[in-house]
Amino acid sequence: MTHSGKSLIHPTPPLFIVLSGPSGVGKDAVLTRLKATESRMRFIITMTTRIRRPEEIDGVDYSFVSKEVFERLLKKNELLESANVYGNWYGVPKQPVRDALREKKDAIVKVDVQGAATIKKIIPDSIFIFLMPPSLDELENRLRQRYTEKPPELAIRLQSAADEIKQVSEFDYVVINNKNGLDIAVEEIKAIITTEKCRVKPRRIIFP
Amino acid sequence: MTHSGKSLIHPTPPLFIVLSGPSGVGKDAVLTRLKATESRMRFIITMTTRIRRPEEIDGVDYSFVSKEVFERLLKKNELLESANVYGNWYGVPKQPVRDALREKKDAIVKVDVQGAATIKKIIPDSIFIFLMPPSLDELENRLRQRYTEKPPELAIRLQSAADEIKQVSEFDYVVINNKNGLDIAVEEIKAIITTEKCRVKPRRIIFP
Repeated sequence: MTHSGKSLIHPTPPLFIVLSGPSGVGKDAVLTRLKATESRMRFIITMTTRIRRPEEIDGVDYSFVSKEVFERLLKKNELLESANVYGNWYGVPKQPVRDALREKKDAIVKVDVQGAATIKKIIPDSIFIFLMPPSLDELENRLRQRYTEKPPELAIRLQSAADEIKQVSEFDYVVINNKNGLDIAVEEIKAIITTEKCRVKPRRIIFP
Repeated sequence: MTHSGKSLIHPTPPLFIVLSGPSGVGKDAVLTRLKATESRMRFIITMTTRIRRPEEIDGVDYSFVSKEVFERLLKKNELLESANVYGNWYGVPKQPVRDALREKKDAIVKVDVQGAATIKKIIPDSIFIFLMPPSLDELENRLRQRYTEKPPELAIRLQSAADEIKQVSEFDYVVINNKNGLDIAVEEIKAIITTEKCRVKPRRIIFP
């Protein structure tokens, strides 16, 4: 075979995708759909020290760990980001991300907007996707359906959402999660993944 | 309706897409497929002064114009890019692009690699897509099937292609047009369009 038989197709480096957005926007629903089709992608599971709820599955919804295990990882700087919410720890472990990238697999993680800001400082070449509700009224409807929250708590969540939405400018992409439009949101995220693999100058994740 | 009922969905500005790549890579085949599904997109037709071939349709394959008409547009700086090939003029008129963008329609144009470089200087916020053959051998096969060219002419075309491929670094995206993989190439271009519309900081075309 001559020199000109050389393939012009180059493998692209793996991607690290950070999916964020306000509470109630539908991040989990989107990820469940993505999981069904993107079998080669690694879905990074958040660790938590809070008690598992009956409907939750360890290693699927969260990795449920003891406070000791969590704090040891925190001390070893083995968490990409972490937060303490009402006395419970939540955090993203670095090792599964490191493993995915070493095996040339794309990885995706779901975090809140504050967590995305933390990851951006550590891995700026991640792909930051903000899942946006069509309106705050619609987000309120969804939160009302989802939680049996008292009005003050709901008001706090909505105020948080309004503040988080202001931070969309720190993200690369915004995907609207319309009512009955989950398929569109999932297709848009898949399009973003496809497109990022077509970039002439790919992002190169340098993992700490 | 309260303040929070305000839609969080913003319309994105129209895109201007420049599809390029070496002769024989399959740009026309890709555009024909795109046309079938992207009915709202404007496909900008290249103008030429050469004689129409029997199988060609005016306004579809090219806009066939007289030398006088072409040179008048050239003098008025109404061509986005132009080239004289073996005594025949080829050029992309500005007006249909201007019309598309004013009507908030995305527009796409097919040009050679030199033409893409010219457009990049004038409208740097265009989306530059390079259609790549899987290998130069494969491109040679396609050129042999397409043309009844004499070996010296074929050699010149292949050398041009090799030179053009070196300029891929000036493009935003590279899409491989594999044998029997036309559908994948078209899907990737559609994914790029979808993704560009999800950008938090959209490209804003300032048209001259």
